[in-house]
Amino acid sequence: MVKFPASQLDRTFAALVDPTRREILARLAREDTVSIGELARPFTIKLPAVMKHLDVLSAAGLISRSKQGRVVSVRLAPKPMAEAMDWLRRYERFWSVRLDRLAAYAEAAEAKSGQTSAGENAT
Amino acid sequence: MVKFPASQLDRTFAALVDPTRREILARLAREDTVSIGELARPFTIKLPAVMKHLDVLSAAGLISRSKQGRVVSVRLAPKPMAEAMDWLRRYERFWSVRLDRLAAYAEAAEAKSGQTSAGENAT
Repeated sequence: MVKFPASQLDRTFAALVDPTRREILARLAREDTVSIGELARPFTIKLPAVMKHLDVLSAAGLISRSKQGRVVSVRLAPKPMAEAMDWLRRYERFWSVRLDRLAAYAEAAEAKSGQTSAGENAT
Repeated sequence: MVKFPASQLDRTFAALVDPTRREILARLAREDTVSIGELARPFTIKLPAVMKHLDVLSAAGLISRSKQGRVVSVRLAPKPMAEAMDWLRRYERFWSVRLDRLAAYAEAAEAKSGQTSAGENAT
């Protein structure tokens, strides 16, 4: 069994718990390097709150910061995200079998109830 | 942009933060239904601690419990796991480009340092 560095996975998943942080990560995935001002703009929360989330992401090793003049920009560190994805992917084939089974069961149940109500309508 | 139910994603990622809970989920992914006694056996932590983790997983909607006689068994609820995976997968293509770029950069740097040291050896 492959051993993953538990503490990095812990930190990555902890960073992903918050919707604002997920939003930030999603934007950084799409846009490469974004200034903090630019990054904070779409949020209704204030800049210090965004900065706090950036601190969490930075401590988790999910982003890196760089400074050019007075502008601080952040960028995604892709490796921990890929590791989190790999962890989930290892088990995906197992749960996808079960999802398919659930879907088939729901379909069968629906077909059956459809037959029943058709039968009811006929009488 | 697809909207994911934020609170379920919050709960799923929060459940994934702990290595013991990840271990439990991994086992449930592979083995379908497992009794709690069986599930607790490989862990060095005590049964009440395992039960606490199961409570967290249950509250997060990641497992369901059933009772047969005196044996309580648990089973994975695959849907939230699939949702977490889907969230990560949406951004994977972006960060995988960057991972490839990092790998290419590291390779180029290595090749260059190899050349340098070969040159140094020649003199």
